[in-house]
Parts: sequence; C-alpha cells; structure tokens
Amino acid sequence: MAEAPIRLGVAGLGRAFMLMLPTLAQDPRIRMVAAADPRPEARARFEADFDARSYDTVEALCAHPGLDAVYVASPHQFHVEHVRIAAGAGKHVLVEKPMALAVEDCLAMVAAARRASVHLIVGHSHSFDAPYLQTRAMIRSGRFGAVRMVTALNFTDYLYRPRRPEELDTTRGGGAIFSQAPHQVEVVRLLAGRPARAIRAAASVWDPARGTEGAYNALLDFGEGLSATLTYNGHGHFDTDEFQDWTGEMGTLRDPAAYGTARAALRRVASPAEEAALKEQRAYGRGSAAAEARKGPPPPAYNHFGLVIASCEKADLRPTARGVLVYGDDERRFEPLPPPQIPRAEVIDELHAAVMHGVPPLHSGEWGLATAEICLALLESARSGRDVTLKHQGPAQTAMTQWEESYGHRILGAP
Amino acid sequence: MAEAPIRLGVAGLGRAFMLMLPTLAQDPRIRMVAAADPRPEARARFEADFDARSYDTVEALCAHPGLDAVYVASPHQFHVEHVRIAAGAGKHVLVEKPMALAVEDCLAMVAAARRASVHLIVGHSHSFDAPYLQTRAMIRSGRFGAVRMVTALNFTDYLYRPRRPEELDTTRGGGAIFSQAPHQVEVVRLLAGRPARAIRAAASVWDPARGTEGAYNALLDFGEGLSATLTYNGHGHFDTDEFQDWTGEMGTLRDPAAYGTARAALRRVASPAEEAALKEQRAYGRGSAAAEARKGPPPPAYNHFGLVIASCEKADLRPTARGVLVYGDDERRFEPLPPPQIPRAEVIDELHAAVMHGVPPLHSGEWGLATAEICLALLESARSGRDVTLKHQGPAQTAMTQWEESYGHRILGAP
Repeated sequence: MAEAPIRLGVAGLGRAFMLMLPTLAQDPRIRMVAAADPRPEARARFEADFDARSYDTVEALCAHPGLDAVYVASPHQFHVEHVRIAAGAGKHVLVEKPMALAVEDCLAMVAAARRASVHLIVGHSHSFDAPYLQTRAMIRSGRFGAVRMVTALNFTDYLYRPRRPEELDTTRGGGAIFSQAPHQVEVVRLLAGRPARAIRAAASVWDPARGTEGAYNALLDFGEGLSATLTYNGHGHFDTDEFQDWTGEMGTLRDPAAYGTARAALRRVASPAEEAALKEQRAYGRGSAAAEARKGPPPPAYNHFGLVIASCEKADLRPTARGVLVYGDDERRFEPLPPPQIPRAEVIDELHAAVMHGVPPLHSGEWGLATAEICLALLESARSGRDVTLKHQGPAQTAMTQWEESYGHRILGAP
Repeated sequence: MAEAPIRLGVAGLGRAFMLMLPTLAQDPRIRMVAAADPRPEARARFEADFDARSYDTVEALCAHPGLDAVYVASPHQFHVEHVRIAAGAGKHVLVEKPMALAVEDCLAMVAAARRASVHLIVGHSHSFDAPYLQTRAMIRSGRFGAVRMVTALNFTDYLYRPRRPEELDTTRGGGAIFSQAPHQVEVVRLLAGRPARAIRAAASVWDPARGTEGAYNALLDFGEGLSATLTYNGHGHFDTDEFQDWTGEMGTLRDPAAYGTARAALRRVASPAEEAALKEQRAYGRGSAAAEARKGPPPPAYNHFGLVIASCEKADLRPTARGVLVYGDDERRFEPLPPPQIPRAEVIDELHAAVMHGVPPLHSGEWGLATAEICLALLESARSGRDVTLKHQGPAQTAMTQWEESYGHRILGAP
C-alpha cells in the first residue's frame, strides 16, 4: 500500500476511542496526527504514543494543519456540535454511534456535511462487520430468493458495565436503546436491504438501580412481506455468545465458565462517582493501551452482535463471527471468511474509499439518520404502545443501492 | 392407582390421534372404549387394538354407554360441531388445537360446555409440556422478580411435511398460524401469566407451491412493561433443535447429520392427491401403531417448542426438553426435571383432575378461545400492518389464576 495514509484527528479519547484504538493503531491506511480531549493526561499520552499534537478543544483540533478527517468519539451529546465544527473546517468526518439523540440533529449534521462537501460516516456499528456485509452480498446475489424475515437476538451484560451517570439516563442518551439498538437496527437494515416502514416496540426500566432501559423488543415492518424482530436484553443473565461458540462481541474468545462478572465487579462500587471513575480507568490515558493495541495479534474472529438469521425463500443465512452458515433447501454448509487481519478494518475500508477516492459510503449521514429515527421511534412506540410510521428511511436506501452497485462488492474482496 | 380409568371415546383417528396414541395407550388413567372415523380400516383396527367399539359418526360414538369423555381429534373444521355433539351428550371434552377457526365458534364451544356442565380442555399444545409448567411455577414463586420479556423462536420443517390440500389453505385453517402459532402463543401466555392486550404481526406466503403462511413474526404486548416476541419459520432450513442438543419437538433424539429430509421426501410426491395419500399413511389404521405405542420406551426428554427464554428481573429462565436453565444474578445452573414416564402425561393430568375430581383445567375453553383470538389477530395484523387490540383474554386469566392457586402446584408434584 504505497498510498499516503489518511491524516486523522481524534475528537474524544474515551471508551469509544479505546475500542477503535487497535484498528486505528494497526491499519496502515490511518495516521493519527492530532487529538482533542479535556483530560490533560489523555492528551499527554496521545502526544507521546503517536508523536502527534493534542488540543483541548475540537475547534483547535480542526485547525491542525493537513488533517484529512476527524473521528468524533466524544460523548453522544457533543456529536452534533463536533460534527458541525469538523465539517465547517472542511474535514471528512467519522462520527461514533449513536449519531445524535434527535432527528433534527441528524438532519443538521447531514446538511453540514453536504454544505461543506465532505463525507460523513457513522460508526463503528456492527453493520460494518464482515460477516454481515458478506451475508448481504449473498442475499443480493439472488441465489437464495428474496429475504423475508430477519431475526436478531442479543443477550449481554451491557447494563452492568461501568457507566457515567448520563449513560444511565435515557433523556440524556443513556440506555440500551441509544447505545445498543443502533447496532442491531443497522445489521437488520443492512440484511433487509429495503427501507423500513413502521416499528412496534416494547421497552421499560427493569432495574430501578440502573434507571434506564436495558432491554427492548421490536417488530420492524419493511412492507411487502418482509419483517424483522429485534430482541435485546442487557441484564447480564443469559448470553447469546453461547450460540457463537463463546466468541465475544469483539471477536475474541471468552471463558465459558466465567459468569456474572460484570454484575460482580459493579457490586464492589459504592457510588455513581466511583462507578464513573471505574469507567474512566477504561478510557485512554493510563497504561500502555497504544503499545498493546499496536502489537496485539489479529483477533481470532470478526466482531458480531448476537444471533442473527436472515430467512430467505431458499435458505436461512446465519452470520457468525467467522463466516456465514447457509441452511439451504438441500444442504447445510459453512462459508468461512478469511480471518481478520486488523480488527474492524471494515470501517477503514469505507473511510479510506470515501476520503481518498471519493466513494460515497454505505454508513453515511443519511444511513445514521435512518437508524436514529428508528431508535427514537422504538422509544416512542414503547411509550405509546402504538405503531410508529417512519419517514426518514428513503435517502439511506438510495445511498445503499448506489454503494452496492458501485463499490459494495469490493469490500472484503468478495466475489 | 386403584382409581377407575377415564372411559374415553376418540372422535377422529388421524394424525393428531397418532401423536397422542403413545399417551393414551400407556397412561393407566385412560381406557379407550370407543372411536368414530369415516375410514372403515381405521375403525376395524381400533376395535382389534383396544378391544373396543367403533362408529362412523360422532353422534353414534357419543351414545356409546358409559363414556366419561370424548377426545375430539377430527380435522380443524369439524371441531365446533363435534364438541357441540359431545357436550350435548353430557361428555367432558378434550379437543385438539386449533380449537376453531373463528372466535364465534370458540364462544359457541365454551357456551355448549357450560350449558352441559362439562369440562372442555383444549390440547395437546406445548404449553402442557412439563418444562414450561415448571418455568411458570418458578416465575410464580417470586424468587426471580417480575417476568418482563418472553422470547420464543422456533425454526422447523413444518411446511414441507405431507399435508391434505386444506392444510395448505389458510381460509380453511391451514398454515403455520392455525397449526403452529397456537403452541407458541400458549407457551408465551403461560409464562407471561397475564392477559395480552395487543398484537402486531407480520406474515406472508413465501412459497407459492405451498400457498399458505409457513412463517410469522409477532410482538405480543401484555402491558405494564411485559412483552413477547414470537418468531416462527417452518420452511425447513435452520432448525432451532440445534439449540436443544438435537432433541426434537416430541422429546426424542434427532440425528444432527440428517438435513432437508422433509423437503427431499416431498419432492418424490407428484400431486396433491399423492401427498394426501402420503399423509394418510401416517394416520392410524395400518401397521402396528398401537402395539408400538404400548411398548415404546419412555422418551428421553419432554416435548418442546423451540427456543424459549423468560426474562425476569433477576434471572433468565430457559426451559429445555429436560428441565430449566436458570441464568441468575450470580450463578448459572440447570434444574433438571425427572425424566418423563409417559409422553405428554401432562394432558392426562389435567383431563383426569377435571373429569374425575372436578378440578377446572388450565387449558379450558376460555384458554383456547384466548389463543384462537390471538392467532386470528396475528393474521389480521399481518394483513393490515396495524396493531390489533385483544378482547377475549380476561376469562382465561381468571381461570389460570384459580388453577394456579388451587391445583397448579400439584402438576409434576412440583414444590
């Protein structure tokens, strides 16, 4: 790869950045040249780790000379402002999910990117994961007939991982519906390959000590006989990794004998402040995260988001962390994917194609808007007990079709 | 068991009877004394097998002296008429699911039983299966907090088993929604333990050669933060028995290497008439079904209906064919049930308690009515793309509460 790397600025060195760090540190298509964070120790660490500059505001970061793109990984509530600043400075933007907490904010972000003629990519979300992209490519091939039903089920310990107070407050973007549903909604939308029309959902707060929704149930109706059920339960009991041979969400192997570890760790925490401190320990700035991220061996498997089955007329396709199980009319077989070289390299595939080659991404602002609308409608439906009709799904679909026709097949080098 | 057995008449010696035959032939609480069927060879066989009488009409069967109860196992469309005849003759009735194809018919059956002061029991359905009853008892104990979400997922080869033409015609009671949804709806209702308020569903015909719905998706809203997703796909691809260690629906072991057998067998059939004949081969009347049913060893496990998870506040409870997996706050454990002695003995538990001891059953006419209403609403919602509000769920709930308080704990000898 003789091409120059993307010169990337990072806005926010928290937990999302930590999860993307192995990707950003290993992928030769990325060079992290600057960052912004309010925490001095994180800034100092970043400068030392990456021989880079750091700033205490996103404005200052965006003025850094020669930046190609900015990765907005700040807390949810700052996404709109930071995307506006980056786009305003003429930078391409990769913004973490959830894109924003209101449809209006998503629309504003899309408009800001369009005005500035920059690409806006929303992610990482699990719809970037190679097994789902591969499943989509298989559906699109037409070999299995039309897709008729998508079943997505994920049981995790999400709610008992350490959180900052706002992450447990739905009105401030906390809870499973803002944090976890975007993954499941995007995987389902990708496989459905058609705009969703309406959603009917149920969700409520089960554990008053956590104060936010940790679970939800939803039926997503795509019309013309295609529908999906999305079931999520983050209460730390049953775990769908059991159905993935104990490969975890990040593609690493889990110990099948370990049980209840998140809840047990949280029990040792005495206050919300102590919990926030525990979370901050997992943010960037201490220890040797960068060195570890650089030298880490490739993960044994891809990222995944639980049990997913795309039911087509002639087969059920079941993406796993290692490939796609095909349950056809006459035979059952496993189509393995080549193992990942760099975790989440699929995000850089899209970012690189957009920034360096002008290829409009699949996970565009319009894509993220469509997801945000569904998540907000999920909450609304859970509260009203009624169907919610969706209105912002069309533009993402147009983009998806273009992307699939022009570029989608090149992702993974798939046939 | 010194008590006299129930003197049972059987109306209809078809496939449903074949599935109940091991139970009826082995359980000492049952004596089959008479039957009705239009097929002379089935009648002759029944007389020889059980030293019993047979008739060509249900009226004549019901006039047989000394009958305690009639098992109505005729095709769906005859249930109303046959229940009316049996109740009119003062017999207790066990009627196969689906109870009927219209709410009005269910109401008429309930009224007929009430007028005659006989018990009406609807089943077998999988909500009789001991692991689900045990899970319900565990929920009711309060140890795990309130139940908040029920997840039910079943993937089978239902649509490709041999059928009579009307079984592939939804307007005549064919398809997964009349034949398979009652099982799933009743398991979910049992675990929810509260009347459902509304349903939103999706279903369509995927395989025009079969002409009826073989799959559906539904969200059942029980209000007050309790909901369930019901997903069924009978198209013979992925099979949820994979999640039951390859124990099949009837509690017997399956060969994990076998694949696509139903579809392959059906391919050798040239016409609907040939298919109906193939199905009739599996009806009672030929071979040594009764001898086999009598001598059959107890099944290694209970009946089951796919993956079911009852998510409570403090645990996920996952009934399997052998017991209940408990994923609690601190530990994961398996609570085994004593292995079944007689398949589906749970049906006879309720029938015997009702007929011999006057105990109102859980699976009463009101229970079956509530299920039929949900199945019809599922179809309606799938067609309209809208929520359907439910109106006939209350009486079943009253009965369930009474049954649980008075008798439910005695089923299985549970604590």
